[in-house]
Amino acid sequence: MTRTSLRVAMIGHAFMGNAHSQAWRTAPRFFDLPLRPEMAVLVGRDADRAAEAADRLGWAESSADWRAVIARDDVDLVDICTPGDTHAEIAIAALRAGKHVLCEKPLANTVAEAEQMTAVADEARAHGVRAMVGFTYRRVPAIGLARRLVEEGRIGEVRHVRAQYLQDWIADPEAPLSWRLDKAKAGSGALGDIGAHVIDLTQYITGDRIAEVSGRLETFVKERPYATSHSGLSGTASTERGPVTVDDAASFLATFGSGAMGVFEATRFATGRKNAIRIEINGSLGSLAFDFEDMNVLEYFDARDDAEVNGFRRILATEPGHPYVAAWWPPGHGLGYEHGFTHQVVDLVEAIAAGADPAPSFADGLQVQRVLAAVETSSHTRTWQEIPQS
Amino acid sequence: MTRTSLRVAMIGHAFMGNAHSQAWRTAPRFFDLPLRPEMAVLVGRDADRAAEAADRLGWAESSADWRAVIARDDVDLVDICTPGDTHAEIAIAALRAGKHVLCEKPLANTVAEAEQMTAVADEARAHGVRAMVGFTYRRVPAIGLARRLVEEGRIGEVRHVRAQYLQDWIADPEAPLSWRLDKAKAGSGALGDIGAHVIDLTQYITGDRIAEVSGRLETFVKERPYATSHSGLSGTASTERGPVTVDDAASFLATFGSGAMGVFEATRFATGRKNAIRIEINGSLGSLAFDFEDMNVLEYFDARDDAEVNGFRRILATEPGHPYVAAWWPPGHGLGYEHGFTHQVVDLVEAIAAGADPAPSFADGLQVQRVLAAVETSSHTRTWQEIPQS
Amino acid sequence: MTRTSLRVAMIGHAFMGNAHSQAWRTAPRFFDLPLRPEMAVLVGRDADRAAEAADRLGWAESSADWRAVIARDDVDLVDICTPGDTHAEIAIAALRAGKHVLCEKPLANTVAEAEQMTAVADEARAHGVRAMVGFTYRRVPAIGLARRLVEEGRIGEVRHVRAQYLQDWIADPEAPLSWRLDKAKAGSGALGDIGAHVIDLTQYITGDRIAEVSGRLETFVKERPYATSHSGLSGTASTERGPVTVDDAASFLATFGSGAMGVFEATRFATGRKNAIRIEINGSLGSLAFDFEDMNVLEYFDARDDAEVNGFRRILATEPGHPYVAAWWPPGHGLGYEHGFTHQVVDLVEAIAAGADPAPSFADGLQVQRVLAAVETSSHTRTWQEIPQS
Amino acid sequence: MTRTSLRVAMIGHAFMGNAHSQAWRTAPRFFDLPLRPEMAVLVGRDADRAAEAADRLGWAESSADWRAVIARDDVDLVDICTPGDTHAEIAIAALRAGKHVLCEKPLANTVAEAEQMTAVADEARAHGVRAMVGFTYRRVPAIGLARRLVEEGRIGEVRHVRAQYLQDWIADPEAPLSWRLDKAKAGSGALGDIGAHVIDLTQYITGDRIAEVSGRLETFVKERPYATSHSGLSGTASTERGPVTVDDAASFLATFGSGAMGVFEATRFATGRKNAIRIEINGSLGSLAFDFEDMNVLEYFDARDDAEVNGFRRILATEPGHPYVAAWWPPGHGLGYEHGFTHQVVDLVEAIAAGADPAPSFADGLQVQRVLAAVETSSHTRTWQEIPQS
Repeated sequence: MTRTSLRVAMIGHAFMGNAHSQAWRTAPRFFDLPLRPEMAVLVGRDADRAAEAADRLGWAESSADWRAVIARDDVDLVDICTPGDTHAEIAIAALRAGKHVLCEKPLANTVAEAEQMTAVADEARAHGVRAMVGFTYRRVPAIGLARRLVEEGRIGEVRHVRAQYLQDWIADPEAPLSWRLDKAKAGSGALGDIGAHVIDLTQYITGDRIAEVSGRLETFVKERPYATSHSGLSGTASTERGPVTVDDAASFLATFGSGAMGVFEATRFATGRKNAIRIEINGSLGSLAFDFEDMNVLEYFDARDDAEVNGFRRILATEPGHPYVAAWWPPGHGLGYEHGFTHQVVDLVEAIAAGADPAPSFADGLQVQRVLAAVETSSHTRTWQEIPQS
Repeated sequence: MTRTSLRVAMIGHAFMGNAHSQAWRTAPRFFDLPLRPEMAVLVGRDADRAAEAADRLGWAESSADWRAVIARDDVDLVDICTPGDTHAEIAIAALRAGKHVLCEKPLANTVAEAEQMTAVADEARAHGVRAMVGFTYRRVPAIGLARRLVEEGRIGEVRHVRAQYLQDWIADPEAPLSWRLDKAKAGSGALGDIGAHVIDLTQYITGDRIAEVSGRLETFVKERPYATSHSGLSGTASTERGPVTVDDAASFLATFGSGAMGVFEATRFATGRKNAIRIEINGSLGSLAFDFEDMNVLEYFDARDDAEVNGFRRILATEPGHPYVAAWWPPGHGLGYEHGFTHQVVDLVEAIAAGADPAPSFADGLQVQRVLAAVETSSHTRTWQEIPQS
Repeated sequence: MTRTSLRVAMIGHAFMGNAHSQAWRTAPRFFDLPLRPEMAVLVGRDADRAAEAADRLGWAESSADWRAVIARDDVDLVDICTPGDTHAEIAIAALRAGKHVLCEKPLANTVAEAEQMTAVADEARAHGVRAMVGFTYRRVPAIGLARRLVEEGRIGEVRHVRAQYLQDWIADPEAPLSWRLDKAKAGSGALGDIGAHVIDLTQYITGDRIAEVSGRLETFVKERPYATSHSGLSGTASTERGPVTVDDAASFLATFGSGAMGVFEATRFATGRKNAIRIEINGSLGSLAFDFEDMNVLEYFDARDDAEVNGFRRILATEPGHPYVAAWWPPGHGLGYEHGFTHQVVDLVEAIAAGADPAPSFADGLQVQRVLAAVETSSHTRTWQEIPQS
Repeated sequence: MTRTSLRVAMIGHAFMGNAHSQAWRTAPRFFDLPLRPEMAVLVGRDADRAAEAADRLGWAESSADWRAVIARDDVDLVDICTPGDTHAEIAIAALRAGKHVLCEKPLANTVAEAEQMTAVADEARAHGVRAMVGFTYRRVPAIGLARRLVEEGRIGEVRHVRAQYLQDWIADPEAPLSWRLDKAKAGSGALGDIGAHVIDLTQYITGDRIAEVSGRLETFVKERPYATSHSGLSGTASTERGPVTVDDAASFLATFGSGAMGVFEATRFATGRKNAIRIEINGSLGSLAFDFEDMNVLEYFDARDDAEVNGFRRILATEPGHPYVAAWWPPGHGLGYEHGFTHQVVDLVEAIAAGADPAPSFADGLQVQRVLAAVETSSHTRTWQEIPQS
């Protein structure tokens, strides 16, 4: 059997480009995909560095001109791994050129951009072109299992959602400035970068939407030394200082459509927490708890169990029946961070082959953007803000 | 050496009266107290039941008339273990009669009552009469250790406080009504009953005060079957239903005086969580984490440790150098819930003997009451509320 | 209703005497006992120190002459809290005097002594006199629950028993000598002191007996500085050194009567483990795991659960239906180390009132002694040793 | 720069072949390797299935004739992923043909085979040909960190080693027979299959060797239904039964060269434990603990820490300074099971390029085999067995 190929162009080759490359490379080796992905072109701003990255990451060609690549007939899908301020332009161009699009989160830096992207995605969809936004944590097996258990009614009516995304990489006030602390480039701080994930995850797991929020943003350290090198998360500090123009931390209360109460935090100042995505959901019949720092585990409490032997179950989400797991290793052989990206490729390729819409859609990404914007507004107005329902 | 005695009258003999009795009985057996407590009189509304309880709990006499008991010359201290709606009257009368007072939390059902009680306590204090409010969780060794570590500067400047008090005893919508769900009697629901504890604990550990809050109260189950018996937490359900007039759950954002961000929850709907008092504090130099469901442990992260071997330390707070522990057992032999009450007696007796003010004072109790009131107001106005500083 | 009293004489007032006193004092306050214990006489070698201890611990009288006390008509029960080398003489005298006996573990320092004590207990039993040995960890609610779950068949046929009792109080080679490191006084080191507990606990939980063992004893630090004070676990080191004549650590394989495989360790050299009594039992239908450092929790795996949501359950053994718990606090309000002693008093008093044999009996204590002796022999002969079945 | 290629032939394409393929594919994408691995030929017994597997797993060619492949000039390295009974023949042929060899564990099914393989490897080594045995768990970052901490002297002199490899896949007596339960094919049961790993790991971490053992093997379920399909771990049960000829579980005591006491278990009957490789090491200055079911974590206790804040540290072994981690993701983004295989490829390729011996060597594999044999002998003789030191 020869499978139709799906020729991919990826734009960007930093942290996310690296993770996406591993996913495109790996997905067809473990999953029986209906289309055969080909890692066709890698695009970067600098031609030499793009060529070097393509060689290292396994892309057949490289280019420094994303517009030219999008125009090529032999490209079927565009995978956007660039910073948020370029998402709208690239995604819109790609969709209009009839290419399927996978776009990293957050979908855009503003609601307006996200609305436009969603509108274009809707048009493209009429022509069989698919668009997906990359909230990969949905594809951690324990998270997929959590979603399934809620869907099966195992925890009943959801009462409480508490979610935190805790990191500590700038807890030290002398940690240098990076582009991620510059609103012009990053759009948002902890709220948009990591808060977006827990917004998406909790809505995905509950199958519900946040209706209103009351939030507070804070910038604890208002000036930092310039980095002598601006390449990413770290760098050596210089003696001059510049302003931090995004939030260091965000916290907000939320009411879900069902009336469930939500409490959210996103921070880069939780000393000792490295990538702690912690979600706990309490329902009338049971509860779920997850922490990405122990990512192969889902805790589950079933209130209907015999009281004598009732307790949170530490489910090792590595059984063949758990989402995505059958393709991998025997029970107890855990997966890692990058597997979520591989699963994302699998779901996207299957949706394209089936002529179905992949999830999360651009509309889903737009809705997350609206929640982020509402939190920011609420922090200024000091009042609750409703989320517009499109 | 003969010690001066401290003759105690206790009012109320339900859950709290039981715990306080164990504390009065036990404290002098393990701690070298400067005064010798005598369990003199137990007071209850019903004379026969009070007599039975006095016999069972080890009180020398019993009475059904608290006013008469307070008037006795041979009573030095009044320990108030009744529901909140009677605290003000009894405490004020006792203080005016020159008796030291230990009053269970919450100090009162309203800010106005708490203000009056605090004013009377201030007057009494001028005459050497002491007043204390019973936030006993402060006296869990791991909590005392947390306070000490913050005081020593080990976690630096506090950035984040996240605190939850999670229970599940009415998660089932068919759980019957009890007086605790009746605002006229209980004053408040989860917020005042258990939320008060995490407000006190986080302020105690950080040595800081909450300056403003934005909160939300929710009553998930608005009607419940009447209990056929109204005696406390449980009871058999009848077929008729009555209204729940207090909050089932409360969540609020807080800003501390220092600017630290707080996120609080108190709920009786966290299925599977039985008495989970969870507190995590992130500072610029380290973090602390505590969960009452594993009460002998404090987790501590020290950011100044060598990165190669850095991680949250699971401190078993059972070493002789930890607060209160030297009086008890060897390392690793944990304490239980009621030990906090014993430590409370120790601290109170020592303060009385030393002519010093015990903590938490009625003023501390009043300040907690103001935070509770501000959360409630905020839930109605949907805006942030500042806490008046007295 | 007036209850018959049970007048108790306790011999010894160190660590165990302190714990037993708290138990006698507390049991009747929380449990509805069929007899009313009276703390009649405390016996110690030194009259002044015994008098001081009696006052502090709440005993009505004191004495320095245990024989005289045992001869008194107004003493019903003798509680032996002295070191192991005196157990046989006191227990035998007390039983022959018609007194019920509670004897701390290990029952004796040799099998021969334990056999004689058991024979005397059997004779006394014919006259309605009861004898019990104090393996109090059986009375931790989570352990009682473990026993119950095995009895109910919930874990099926037992395959594996792994048990460790880990401490670290002499891991430092400069920790001074104490009487506990002197074979003449202590009889045994880690094996008899703490290994005895895990032998008793695993046999209790499984309802099975160890049939044979292959073991190894080790003394890692063969000489230590003399303590300048010999009072117990600690002391200041002197410059002279003396020999350690007991084992620092013991490990052994065991075969249970059923064929289940056992692996045991007892050590005072497990750096960082303070009182880690860890027991894991794997059966054909489920598993149990316990660690005393988190003593209110029992972990339970039920192989018959739906595979999708299966995992070890963290049972907080604080529910009213769990052993002993109904007498104490609401769910989630944990118990501590000394509660096991209180439960021991409850069980003993109930057995005496009912004319029934309390457990563990002297015969049970003897059997543990035989396992200890077999491990020691095995360590010398380097072969498996069978345990004689009486 | 053009790198010299390293052309690889892999023999076997089941579970291990799958994991090795992922490693060869992935290593050069994340690590800067001195040679460029080429996935040249995949060999399987059945030509069609080998061709299918080569296509799926990414090998350029396939073959059903391993001897022909070994004879090829354009093959530099032979990666042996077949069952243990074929290791000796293939490895010896490959080494004699001048090919580097990576051989899955256990090195062989008997000590005699392993001795011969080691001798041939020693000869080959004189000609610059490298041989390595695949104990990949050594390459889990938390394990590498454990090794490093012991080497740095952080836990002092090792006193105790306790290690368990717990699985449960045949805990059900009705689980069908597989080739793994047939001594003729598998050589050994739990002991050789999984016990070998904890023997290697504890010797690697401590840098010490087991000197003697006392062990016991057990086959709990002596007859099982034949599988209707014999393909691996599972299968449908038939009504006929056949004998289980290997051990279901093994436990043994060990003495290390240093005198440290070891306690080991390997079992397929630990209900609820899926792949629990648990290692705890207690030294005079500190302790380490690891559990593969939470594989990104190493627990570490440092006895020299201030007693007030001392406790086991939960080190998330995802920091750039931890072994292998810098090549992957930011802190807190955990790795999974297969990463150990990738790290194995990295270490092997670097050793080959450097003209150095990779570890673990065939001699290391032989020594593990001798420990396994000694345990088996000990189980029969019921006495301690010394391990011959080569």
